[in-house]
Amino acid sequence: MSNLTLPLSDIENLARQCLLANGANAAHAEALTRTMAAAERDGCPSHGLFRLPGYVASLRSGKVDGNAEPVVERLSSTVVRVDGRGSYAPLSIELGRPQLVEAAREHGIAALGLVNVHHFAALWIEVEALTECGLVGFAFTSYMPSVAPAGAQSAFFGTNPMAFGWPRPGKSPVIFDQASAAMARGEIMIAARDGHDVAEGAGLDADGQPTTDPKAILEGGTQLPFGGYKGSAIAMMVELLAAGLLGQPFSYEAANEDNKDGGPPRGGELIIALDPDRFGDAEDWAAHCEAFFDALAGLEGVRLPGARRYTNRAQGTQPSVPQSLLDKIVELTNGV
Amino acid sequence: MSNLTLPLSDIENLARQCLLANGANAAHAEALTRTMAAAERDGCPSHGLFRLPGYVASLRSGKVDGNAEPVVERLSSTVVRVDGRGSYAPLSIELGRPQLVEAAREHGIAALGLVNVHHFAALWIEVEALTECGLVGFAFTSYMPSVAPAGAQSAFFGTNPMAFGWPRPGKSPVIFDQASAAMARGEIMIAARDGHDVAEGAGLDADGQPTTDPKAILEGGTQLPFGGYKGSAIAMMVELLAAGLLGQPFSYEAANEDNKDGGPPRGGELIIALDPDRFGDAEDWAAHCEAFFDALAGLEGVRLPGARRYTNRAQGTQPSVPQSLLDKIVELTNGV
Repeated sequence: MSNLTLPLSDIENLARQCLLANGANAAHAEALTRTMAAAERDGCPSHGLFRLPGYVASLRSGKVDGNAEPVVERLSSTVVRVDGRGSYAPLSIELGRPQLVEAAREHGIAALGLVNVHHFAALWIEVEALTECGLVGFAFTSYMPSVAPAGAQSAFFGTNPMAFGWPRPGKSPVIFDQASAAMARGEIMIAARDGHDVAEGAGLDADGQPTTDPKAILEGGTQLPFGGYKGSAIAMMVELLAAGLLGQPFSYEAANEDNKDGGPPRGGELIIALDPDRFGDAEDWAAHCEAFFDALAGLEGVRLPGARRYTNRAQGTQPSVPQSLLDKIVELTNGV
Repeated sequence: MSNLTLPLSDIENLARQCLLANGANAAHAEALTRTMAAAERDGCPSHGLFRLPGYVASLRSGKVDGNAEPVVERLSSTVVRVDGRGSYAPLSIELGRPQLVEAAREHGIAALGLVNVHHFAALWIEVEALTECGLVGFAFTSYMPSVAPAGAQSAFFGTNPMAFGWPRPGKSPVIFDQASAAMARGEIMIAARDGHDVAEGAGLDADGQPTTDPKAILEGGTQLPFGGYKGSAIAMMVELLAAGLLGQPFSYEAANEDNKDGGPPRGGELIIALDPDRFGDAEDWAAHCEAFFDALAGLEGVRLPGARRYTNRAQGTQPSVPQSLLDKIVELTNGV
C-alpha cells in the first residue's frame, strides 16, 4: 500500500471539495473539514480523511442532511440545546459552543445537549475547544452496538467514547478521549488483515466464547468493554447521558433505525463545561495542577493523556494518506 | 472467626455511642451512623461498622474535628461549596445537598464542592440521595496513593472512586460506585490472609514487576488501575475534579500531610447533579430509559449496577458483624 505525503492545506481542499460535491453546504463542509484536518495534523489518521467516504455515503443515501440549519435553543440559564436536524455534529457543536462557554463562565457549570446529529469525528476536538476557553470539559456520545455489557455474550453498547479535558494556561491541555471498548475496532480490523492475534479480553466469538482471533470477533462476535464490569458501567453511563437524558436513540435503537450505509447513526451528545475559576480556588488552581502534572509526567513510563498528539502537532509532519484513499476521494468528488 | 447477627437499630446504637464517646458531636455522629447503617443494610460490610475504628482513630488523634461546624457557601447560582473545617464528609454533604438540589432543579445542572473533609464512606450514598430527588448524580473523591498510573511502577493515584446514579421514578435507581483500582484493596488483603493468588493485572511487586501474590502487592508494591491506561485516565480525572478544581490535596499531597493514624486523609469531593426534566425530554425520558434498562437487564448474565444492594435491602437480612469487631467497638466506646 503506497502512501502520499500532503500538506495540511491539500487535505483541507480535498475534504472540502468532496463534501461540497456531495451535498454538504459550505458551513457543514467547513466544519467537517476542520475536524478531519485537526485529526490529520495531530497524527490521528483514523479520524482524518479516512472518514470522508463514510461522510459522503450518508450524504448520498440521504440519511444525513448536508444543508440542515441547526437550531440553538437555551433551555435554561445553564442548559443549551442544539437540534442538528439530521446533519453532522461538528457544525451544531460550533454553533452551540459560544452559549455553553458564556453560561459556564457566568454560572460555573453548564451543559450543551446535541440532538438529531450524526457523530463521526474525534471527541477530543470539542473538549479541546473548551480548554482553549479556560474551561474543563466532558463529552459523551453513543454509537451503534459493538460492545457486550460485562457478563453478556452479545453486543449491546456502542463504542461509546467519553472525553475529558483540563485547561493549562500557556500549555497544551491534558485531554483523554477513550472508547468504552477494550480495543479500538480499527485495531481489531488491522489485526485481522495482517493475520495477528489480539490480546485476551478484546472480544468474544459468535458463540460468546473469549477469543484472540480478530476475525471471530468481527464476524458475528462482539467486542468487550475495557476493564470488565467497570468499563461496562462507563459505557452504560455514556448511553444514559447521550441518549437517555436528551431523548435520543440508545445504541440498540440507533441500530434499528439506521440504514447501514457506512456512515454514523443518528444520536445525541452531551457536553459539560466547568469554569475552574468559579470553584473557590481561582488564584491557585493552575499552578497547583501544574505541580500535579509535573509529578505525574515525572514518573518513569508515564505520558500525559493527549501528549502524543501535541508532539505530532508541534513537529508539523505532513499527513501521509494512502494512495487508494486519495483515489477514492477523487472518484467521490467527481460523482463516481 | 465468629459473627453475630444484629438488628440495624443495634448497629446504629453501637456506631452512635462509640462516636459520641470519642469526640464527635451529635450532628456528626448521626451523619456518620447513617452512612455505616446504610452500608450494613445493603450488605456492604466493608463500609459499615468495619470503618468505625478508623473513624475513632482520627477523632482521637485530633486529625479530624468531631465538633466542626461546616460552612455552606454559594459561590454562584449553580456552584455550592461546603467547607467541612476538618470534619468527616457526611455532615457537609447533608448540609450542602439542599442547595445543590435546588440549584439543579432551577438551572438544570449544578455542582457541590466539598473542601477540608475526610471521606471514609461509600460514595453511592450521596449519589443515591440525589436520585431520590429525581436527579442524575456524579461524585468523585480522591484518597492516598495506592494505584500506579498506567506505565508507572509505583503508587501515585488514590483508589479514587467515582459514582454515578440515574433516577428511576418508582423504582430503585441505577448506581455504580467504583474505585479506579482493578481490585479493591480489601479483596487483596483477604487473598493475602487466606493464601490465595489474585488475578493478573491487580498489582505490581516492590520491583515494579507484575505479580499475582497479594502480599507482594501490599508490602512495598502497588495496585494497578482497572482497564490499563483507560482506567488510569479515569483515576487522573478524579484527582483533577476532587483536588485540582477545589484547591484540595492531590493524593500524593494528602499522603505527605497525613498523620497515618488509620483514618482518611483531608481532601475534597465534587458532586454534580443534573435534572433530567430540564434537558428537553421531560415527558419521555423516564419511560425511554426503562425500556433501555429492561433491554440491558434482559441480557443473560447482566445485572444492573447496584441491583445486588437493593436485593439485600429488600430482603432485610440482619447484618452479620464479626465478634472481634464488636469487642473492639465496645472497647473504643469505653475509652480503651
